[in-house]
Amino acid sequence: MNEIEQWGRYEVVLTGPEGGNPFFDVQLSAEFTDGHQTLTPDGFYDGGGVYRIRFMPVSPGKWTYVTRSNRPELDGQTGEFTCVKPSPGNHGPVSVRNTFHFGYADGTPYYSFGTTCYAWTHQGEELEAQTLATLQQARFNKIRMCVFPKHYPWNHNEPPLYAFERDSAGVHDLTRFNPAFFQHFEQRVGQLCDLGIEADIIIFHPYDRWGYAEMDAESDYRYLRYLVARLAAYRNVWWSLANEYDFLLETKPMEQWDQFFQILLDKDPYNHLRSIHQADASRMYDHTKPGVTHVCIQHSNVRQVIEWRRTYGKPIVDDELEYEGNVTYPWGCISAEEETHRFWLIVTNGGYGGHGETYLHPDDILWWSKGGVLHGESWKRIGFLRQIIEDGAAGGLTPEADANNGLFPSRFGHWMWTRFAGGFNGDFHLIYLAEYQPCKVLLWLPPDDAYQFDVIDTWEMTISPAQVRRLDGTPDYGYPSPDGEPTYEIGLPGKPHLALRIRKQTGTAG
Amino acid sequence: MNEIEQWGRYEVVLTGPEGGNPFFDVQLSAEFTDGHQTLTPDGFYDGGGVYRIRFMPVSPGKWTYVTRSNRPELDGQTGEFTCVKPSPGNHGPVSVRNTFHFGYADGTPYYSFGTTCYAWTHQGEELEAQTLATLQQARFNKIRMCVFPKHYPWNHNEPPLYAFERDSAGVHDLTRFNPAFFQHFEQRVGQLCDLGIEADIIIFHPYDRWGYAEMDAESDYRYLRYLVARLAAYRNVWWSLANEYDFLLETKPMEQWDQFFQILLDKDPYNHLRSIHQADASRMYDHTKPGVTHVCIQHSNVRQVIEWRRTYGKPIVDDELEYEGNVTYPWGCISAEEETHRFWLIVTNGGYGGHGETYLHPDDILWWSKGGVLHGESWKRIGFLRQIIEDGAAGGLTPEADANNGLFPSRFGHWMWTRFAGGFNGDFHLIYLAEYQPCKVLLWLPPDDAYQFDVIDTWEMTISPAQVRRLDGTPDYGYPSPDGEPTYEIGLPGKPHLALRIRKQTGTAG
Repeated sequence: MNEIEQWGRYEVVLTGPEGGNPFFDVQLSAEFTDGHQTLTPDGFYDGGGVYRIRFMPVSPGKWTYVTRSNRPELDGQTGEFTCVKPSPGNHGPVSVRNTFHFGYADGTPYYSFGTTCYAWTHQGEELEAQTLATLQQARFNKIRMCVFPKHYPWNHNEPPLYAFERDSAGVHDLTRFNPAFFQHFEQRVGQLCDLGIEADIIIFHPYDRWGYAEMDAESDYRYLRYLVARLAAYRNVWWSLANEYDFLLETKPMEQWDQFFQILLDKDPYNHLRSIHQADASRMYDHTKPGVTHVCIQHSNVRQVIEWRRTYGKPIVDDELEYEGNVTYPWGCISAEEETHRFWLIVTNGGYGGHGETYLHPDDILWWSKGGVLHGESWKRIGFLRQIIEDGAAGGLTPEADANNGLFPSRFGHWMWTRFAGGFNGDFHLIYLAEYQPCKVLLWLPPDDAYQFDVIDTWEMTISPAQVRRLDGTPDYGYPSPDGEPTYEIGLPGKPHLALRIRKQTGTAG
Repeated sequence: MNEIEQWGRYEVVLTGPEGGNPFFDVQLSAEFTDGHQTLTPDGFYDGGGVYRIRFMPVSPGKWTYVTRSNRPELDGQTGEFTCVKPSPGNHGPVSVRNTFHFGYADGTPYYSFGTTCYAWTHQGEELEAQTLATLQQARFNKIRMCVFPKHYPWNHNEPPLYAFERDSAGVHDLTRFNPAFFQHFEQRVGQLCDLGIEADIIIFHPYDRWGYAEMDAESDYRYLRYLVARLAAYRNVWWSLANEYDFLLETKPMEQWDQFFQILLDKDPYNHLRSIHQADASRMYDHTKPGVTHVCIQHSNVRQVIEWRRTYGKPIVDDELEYEGNVTYPWGCISAEEETHRFWLIVTNGGYGGHGETYLHPDDILWWSKGGVLHGESWKRIGFLRQIIEDGAAGGLTPEADANNGLFPSRFGHWMWTRFAGGFNGDFHLIYLAEYQPCKVLLWLPPDDAYQFDVIDTWEMTISPAQVRRLDGTPDYGYPSPDGEPTYEIGLPGKPHLALRIRKQTGTAG
C-alpha cells in the first residue's frame, strides 16, 4: 500500500490536454481528507500533457482525495494513501512559536540561523552542487533565495533557464510558464529540505533585466498561484514576498502587496511562514498586518530588535544586518568580527539574524548571490552560536532588558542592557558583553539554587567554566540587590566579545 | 620696568588684616585698564595676612590698576605694568570658534583631545609628579579634574589637604577656606598650562564623604567666587560646573545651577569656557542656555554628535564616551580598539571626545581618577588622530552628512554616512570607514582639481598613499554623479578601522 511519511510529499499525476494554453485554460485542484480535516491544494500543469497535484499530509493516518477540474478527464479522480511517521530529521514545517520564536510542527524548537544566496539556483549544475556541498558543512538552517534570476553588479551571467516560454528573439510569453525552470527550482528546494535547511523563497525582486520585475498585476498573481501550487507541499518552504519591496512600489503599489499576502493566505493549505523584506527602514511594510507571520528586516542597527519586538509582537529576523565582505557598498563590507558581533547582539536580545558573504572573486562568484564556497570567518562563529542556543535556549530567548527579574537591580538594569546584550529563558541566561571587557561582573541570582557559569569566547569559539565567587555582602564597586539576593562575582579574562552563560544546576554537583 | 607677557599672570600682593574672618569680612577687587578696556577681577585672601589680586592681561601695552576694598589699607592701591608679546607656546585662552569648534586667542585653532584624571591633584607629590610626566609624553591637550577630592570605588585614600579649615575632630568651617589647598591646586593648573594642557576644572561632584557635595547654597556660591578669584587669571582654565550634576539635583536644584553659571558670567573677567556634565542622558542640562559655551556630554553612542550639533548649535565634547579599561562598570571597560573607534567616529563627525583609562591596579591607581602612568593602547591612537586633525582640519570639521556637496550623490549620501563617518573643511576630507572594510570606495570630486588620497590605519597609526584611479564613466557597482563629476576609485587594503584622507593638491605635482 501507498505510504507517505508525515510532512512528506504526495503527488497525484494526471494526463490531460496539451493544446490551447493549459496554464490558462485548465483549472485543477484536489480535496484531501483524513476524515477530520480537508485541505484543497491547487494542481498545476507541468508540460507535456502532465498535470500534478502536490500534497503534504499533516497528520498520520489514512488520507483520500478527489480531484476537481473544469476538464472532465481531470475531474473526479480519486485515490488514497496512508500517512506514516516522519523519518528521522523530518520535523515538519516551521511556524511561529512563543510569539517571538519558531518551532517545527513536531514540537522541536527552530532557531533561525540563515544565510543568503539570492541567485544560486541559476548558476548551472557544477556551482549549484558546490553550493549544496558547502551548505552541508556549514550550520545554516535557512537560506534566502530568489525564484527569478538576478541582474546586478557581479551578476551578469545569463541563467540556464527562464521562467516563461520565450521565442527565438527572447520575447517571453507571460501566459506560459516554463516547467523546466520550476522543476529545477523545486529540485533545489527539495535538496535543501534533505539538508534540513529552510528555503526562504523570494518571490519578487527588483534586480532584473528580463522583465520579471515589471510584469502586470494579473501575471504577478498568476505566477504567485503557480508557485504556491508547485511548492507549498515542500515542508521547508517560507514565503518571502520580496527582497526590497519598496524599490518595486512604482510598478506594484501597496494594495498589490496586500493582495499577494491574501493569495498566500487563500492558496497555501499549510500556512507556511510569510514575510516581506524592505530596503529603506522608513518604508517598512506594516508588519502588524495579519498576513505577515514574522518580521523580516534589513537594518544595520541590530540593537533595535528590542523595539521591533515591542512594535510588532512577532518573531524578528534581521535578514540583512549587512554582509561580511569587501565590496564597495556598505551593506556588503563589514568585517567577520562585526558580522559575528551583530549576530550575538540580535540573538541574545531575542531576535534572529541573516548571514551573507560578499568577498570579491575573480570570477564574480560571491556567496551572497551565487553560492559556491564560503571565504569568510563569521559563518563558523554563527554555527557555534547556533549550537549554544540549541543547547540551552529552550524555545527562545527573551531580552533581559524586558525582564522584571533582571540580573542587575532595576535601577541599573536599563543602563547595563544598553551596553551588554542578554537573553534568558527560565534559568538559562546568555549575556553578551559586546565591546566591553570587564575583568569582573557582578550579578544577582535567586538564593538556594546552584548555578553553572561559563565564559564563551565568541571569536575563538571556546567555552570554559568561569571563576565565580558568591560574595558575603556587596563590594564597594557593586550595588546591593534590592531583593536581598546574593551577589556573584564572575571573573573574566578582560577582553572584548565574550559572553557569559548561566545555567541552573539540576544535578547533584556541589 | 614691570613686564608681563600677554595672557600671563600679573599679581597684586597686599598685606591686610588677619583678624576676624578675612574670607568673610574683606571685600577686594581691582580695576585694570589699558585705556581701552577695563577688567575688574576680585581679589582673595591667601592666609597669613596676604591678599592677592590676579590678573591676566588680554592685550599688549601699558596697563594700570587701582584696588577697591572695604578696608582702607587695601583700598586705592595703584600700580602699572607693560604687557608684552606672549612667549612661544602661549596662545592665550581657548574660546568657541566657527560655532562648533574652538580656537586660542591668538587665532591658532584648538582641537580638543582630552583625558580624565578626576582626583589627580589629591594624590601627593610623587604620584602627581608622575602624572605630569605622563602628560608631557601623551598628546592630550585637556584634562578633566575635580577641585574637591573624590570618594568612590578605588578612591578611598584621604587627601593630603582639605578645602576648608578643620578642627581637631575633622569638622570643617565652610566660612574659612584653606589657602594651602588652593595654592596646591593652582600650582597644578599652572603646571598644566606650562605643558599646553587646558584644565577642565570640575567645580562640584557627587563622589564625596567630606561634605563638599552637601554644602548649603551660600557656601557653594562663596566657594565658586573664591575659585574664580584665584583661578580665572590662568589662561588654560575651563569651568566645568559639575560632573554628573544630575546626581546632585536633590541638594542643588536647577535654579542653583543656573545661578552658578550667572556667577561665572559676572565674576570671570575673561569669559573662560563654561560647561556642565550629566550622568543620565534623559536629564541633560539645557545646553541652549546662554551661560553654556559648549556642550559637555556623557554618552556612549557617539554617532549622535550629528544630532547634538543640530540641537545645540555649539561645540560638542563627549567627555565620557566611556573609558578604556576593565572595571566592572560598563562605563569603564571598553577595549582600546573601541575607545579609538569612538574617537574617530566623533571627531570625523565634527565633535570632540574625552579619553579615560580604568584598568584595575594593585594599588588602586587608576588613571581616570588618580593619574600615574597610562596602561592602555588607545591614548597613542588618539594622539595620532590629533596630529592628523592639526595637520589638516583648518579650524574644524563639518560632518559630510550635513553637507550639500557630499562626496556621495545625495540619493546615497545619507545612507553612506549612517555607516561611514566623515568630516570636511574646504578641500580637506577625512572619512572614517569604521567597521566597514571595502577594498574599493568610489567618490565624486570636482573636476579640474588634483587630489592627494591617503589611507590611514587608525590602529597601526600608518598613513600611506592610496591607489587611485580616475574612471571614465561609472562602473556598474557605482552610481553616476548627479553633477557629472568624475568618479575616483580608491583602492583599500580591505580591513576594518581604516580612514581615507583627501586633500586638494596645491603644489605642482602631476
